Amino acid sequence: MLDAVLAQLVEYGYDALSVDAVADRSGVHRTTVYRRWRDVGGLLADVLAEATGDGWHPPDTGSLDGDLVAVNREIHAALTADPPVTAALIAASFRSGPAADALRGFWADRYDRCAVIVRRAAERGETPAHTDPRQLLVAATAPLYHEIVLLRSPASLDLADQAARAAATAARAGAFVD
Amino acid sequence: MLDAVLAQLVEYGYDALSVDAVADRSGVHRTTVYRRWRDVGGLLADVLAEATGDGWHPPDTGSLDGDLVAVNREIHAALTADPPVTAALIAASFRSGPAADALRGFWADRYDRCAVIVRRAAERGETPAHTDPRQLLVAATAPLYHEIVLLRSPASLDLADQAARAAATAARAGAFVD
Repeated sequence: MLDAVLAQLVEYGYDALSVDAVADRSGVHRTTVYRRWRDVGGLLADVLAEATGDGWHPPDTGSLDGDLVAVNREIHAALTADPPVTAALIAASFRSGPAADALRGFWADRYDRCAVIVRRAAERGETPAHTDPRQLLVAATAPLYHEIVLLRSPASLDLADQAARAAATAARAGAFVD
Repeated sequence: MLDAVLAQLVEYGYDALSVDAVADRSGVHRTTVYRRWRDVGGLLADVLAEATGDGWHPPDTGSLDGDLVAVNREIHAALTADPPVTAALIAASFRSGPAADALRGFWADRYDRCAVIVRRAAERGETPAHTDPRQLLVAATAPLYHEIVLLRSPASLDLADQAARAAATAARAGAFVD
């Protein structure tokens, strides 16, 4: 069912994403789909809630640079994937309040899960103790979203690595201490 | 005319942004509007082209930190403005190819104009000579767009200052040398 939402979204865009189209594509009866999701925003919110609940854990490479580089390579892969599911969900978040809320929830969950990267770095003495995890994680990852999603640049893997390492460098110098 | 486009976009969103609505709002004859712009994407592209051609120059505060903080405060003001013109243009860029192209052009122009910030920093000996201006500028500014535009957070001015200083710290350590 949720696969049908994503397939429809990627193939035809948000404008073609009606509950009817998703029902037809998935073979589920329209009444059932309406009862459960009511509207397109609800469908997208569920797609993201499913992704949020997955068993994802951040990489543990033994260094702050290595962990942030690994996270950024995953983001790079997601943002340049074919079909462009992540890009389509971000675009849809500009159309649907529930989808925007769900996307924010997805990211908040990922920042929470990634906070352990920053804790481990502090325990190893790589960064000051009171480094703010979210500020560091946003600094490391935002350049990728900016170049690929907003500027629609053909952002290379080099950018992923370089943005991660630049944020780690700033963190070691205490730039994200509250 | 272009003011009418922005007013319509901010007030009613992209879906209500027809050439007819803009013509009615501006008092210009519909035929004239169609002859000049053909479609909504063309209208938005012209709005952005006008902003691109303005006489904007980056601040010159005497330090890399100061210059980047000043740029980020301008971006913060634009992204939190009421009415939210910039946010509405970014949202529209997900709907219209010409608007996306124009937004990319606007940003490319701003990065070009801001490159002097990075040159001056190198001349003052604050940063290594071969620091890449765009990579540094994206690192300094992307966290603001990420928090406000994608995560819809109530991003404070503190974030603007902190993101600018973190990028400057990384630049001084050579993180953006090609």
